[in-house]
Amino acid sequence: MILITRREQFSAAHRLFRNNWDDEKNLEAFGKCSNPNWHGHNYVLFVTVKGEINPETGFVVNIKKLSTIIKETVISKLDHKNINIDVDFMHGKLASTENLAIGIWDQLEPSISAIGIELHCIKIMETENNYIEYYGN
Amino acid sequence: MILITRREQFSAAHRLFRNNWDDEKNLEAFGKCSNPNWHGHNYVLFVTVKGEINPETGFVVNIKKLSTIIKETVISKLDHKNINIDVDFMHGKLASTENLAIGIWDQLEPSISAIGIELHCIKIMETENNYIEYYGN
Amino acid sequence: MILITRREQFSAAHRLFRNNWDDEKNLEAFGKCSNPNWHGHNYVLFVTVKGEINPETGFVVNIKKLSTIIKETVISKLDHKNINIDVDFMHGKLASTENLAIGIWDQLEPSISAIGIELHCIKIMETENNYIEYYGN
Amino acid sequence: MILITRREQFSAAHRLFRNNWDDEKNLEAFGKCSNPNWHGHNYVLFVTVKGEINPETGFVVNIKKLSTIIKETVISKLDHKNINIDVDFMHGKLASTENLAIGIWDQLEPSISAIGIELHCIKIMETENNYIEYYGN
Amino acid sequence: MILITRREQFSAAHRLFRNNWDDEKNLEAFGKCSNPNWHGHNYVLFVTVKGEINPETGFVVNIKKLSTIIKETVISKLDHKNINIDVDFMHGKLASTENLAIGIWDQLEPSISAIGIELHCIKIMETENNYIEYYGN
Amino acid sequence: MILITRREQFSAAHRLFRNNWDDEKNLEAFGKCSNPNWHGHNYVLFVTVKGEINPETGFVVNIKKLSTIIKETVISKLDHKNINIDVDFMHGKLASTENLAIGIWDQLEPSISAIGIELHCIKIMETENNYIEYYGN
Repeated sequence: MILITRREQFSAAHRLFRNNWDDEKNLEAFGKCSNPNWHGHNYVLFVTVKGEINPETGFVVNIKKLSTIIKETVISKLDHKNINIDVDFMHGKLASTENLAIGIWDQLEPSISAIGIELHCIKIMETENNYIEYYGN
Repeated sequence: MILITRREQFSAAHRLFRNNWDDEKNLEAFGKCSNPNWHGHNYVLFVTVKGEINPETGFVVNIKKLSTIIKETVISKLDHKNINIDVDFMHGKLASTENLAIGIWDQLEPSISAIGIELHCIKIMETENNYIEYYGN
Repeated sequence: MILITRREQFSAAHRLFRNNWDDEKNLEAFGKCSNPNWHGHNYVLFVTVKGEINPETGFVVNIKKLSTIIKETVISKLDHKNINIDVDFMHGKLASTENLAIGIWDQLEPSISAIGIELHCIKIMETENNYIEYYGN
Repeated sequence: MILITRREQFSAAHRLFRNNWDDEKNLEAFGKCSNPNWHGHNYVLFVTVKGEINPETGFVVNIKKLSTIIKETVISKLDHKNINIDVDFMHGKLASTENLAIGIWDQLEPSISAIGIELHCIKIMETENNYIEYYGN
Repeated sequence: MILITRREQFSAAHRLFRNNWDDEKNLEAFGKCSNPNWHGHNYVLFVTVKGEINPETGFVVNIKKLSTIIKETVISKLDHKNINIDVDFMHGKLASTENLAIGIWDQLEPSISAIGIELHCIKIMETENNYIEYYGN
Repeated sequence: MILITRREQFSAAHRLFRNNWDDEKNLEAFGKCSNPNWHGHNYVLFVTVKGEINPETGFVVNIKKLSTIIKETVISKLDHKNINIDVDFMHGKLASTENLAIGIWDQLEPSISAIGIELHCIKIMETENNYIEYYGN
């Protein structure tokens, strides 16, 4: 088995809260992440794919093409944006890193399979101390 | 000369824009950093101080005390906040990393001199590709 | 499958040696790691857990709670300590990173399952060039 | 299951191209990586092995011995070399990171099994944004 | 004083040797860096500039503009190139990191002063263990 | 002005305490760093030198020679050692990073000037959050 990973980054604002909870309950559940005026992160995204090596090129996938797919499909929607407000695929979801990882998987998966490789893992680092890995359902 | 540097971090939202400019002019001057719905970063702050070594302790300054001063004076005001809205010492200023560095210097300097050492440099990394260093006036 | 990882750190002294071996044999087996006067490291610990996303919070686990468990259960016992002498769960064991990873797993596992999630991996970096991953028995 | 990883590095030149393609077709397939005058990278290699803990030493494997095997078997052939020209185990292969990972696996595997442990993964970072992982056939 | 630093990267091949020395003498002076078939690095470039803060924008310089100047003036000439052969401003010079830093300074300085700021430092990391800083004559 | 920096590392144990203070007063002054059973760090050492570029080699100094001097003069005395007990040049001094930086400067300076270059700075990172820079008297 051979895996290829591409790292991309985006800087975004977000807030963790539930509309049907008051400020106090949001603060209790989400701590300072519930600040009504938002906060933000430099998110680091690792997209891992797998496939067979093409004997003509020695590549599983041209890393430039993979990078372009990631940028067009997800980074352009997330970078310098507000995850709660600006990002269509996050509407109606809590803006946790867990949900973001699943959202990015769902955005990327069709474009990845369309070029004959398989999406293996979405990893998102929210800070240098916290990260999420999602391997699909 | 001997210098001590303490690294701290904060995650914050911000936006670059001028009230007296329309959206188009803000976009031209600040690009995607002018997004009205905010974006954010994991800012990394390096505070460098200088002084004499205390022969009793071998320290220029107890790094724990320095860290506490930085956390109480600036990190508590910036972490998980909106720099434009929530941060008193940034009111009325453009939320650029340059102005943030100067603002942090002005916040920290009195507490640093009060313990008998000298503030030497404020360095802020906004992303792994961009950083500002401010050495005072 | 969704995984969450929290990074924590501790600085500790240790020594690799066997009481029933003489200095020469210890030196042969463990090299400079057998120095009788100890040496030390900044250990970096990655704790990975898995579970279902709570639809109310968007979290598998509140990362703050996970961090608190790790700090109370293992970091407080290891940070600024001597692994061979000060750490109860390492008594009678060789202070290798392998044994440390297993020891940390055994310390953490009950507290992790108690909050309804599953411990997946303990990773310890002893230096930037060496690390151990333990996935349980 | 317990895994040990050793990081090593090498700086090498390479070029991606096929002899049976003209310059234009090579440029189309490989982009700037096909530059006829070569380019190069600081490659970072992670070798992961697995095995049982030796109760006498607390080690799965002495990391120094593992490092020596990696240096003698692969780093000495790759560091400050041209992957296309100087490296025997890459002759006749496209110098992609995918093929390099497989080549390194094949070089290392016999020496790793010879000391009673199992090779688990070869990971190569070509840049901080791209890496390959190979787990054997 | 306020300084701004932009990080950029390039991957290039090079070789250290003198035409008027034979292979043996080159090997003695430059070690494995004299390999006739080239080797290469992921060079990391830090460009530091200084100036006054523009009160309209809060910027010393728009970091995007600075990045564009660096990419157009030096990265486009160096990335995926052979420093000895392909890079006009290095012709006739030994391809040491010292000379590269001076060469990059001389390339960048006119474009930097043209936008009203001052070039302060060129820093190049050849590997994570070695770097050069050049502050001009 | 042109500066060259070499990074080296060492793992060591230490303890901060004064013999003429009791345990309570040591704990008050040095916190957990006064643990009588020692603790330790992976120290990262940056040695910066300056000089003229040798036109024959393009080097201010052969980085390999600089590395050898650092390893022979200081790393061999510090790596896998106890700074308080094993390191001759630290005897009778508090094992703070400040004093260590000065001690390393005094060890290195004669060997650096002996090869016709000038020692400019000793930087020691004790953890990723704390570092000391010493520029000589």
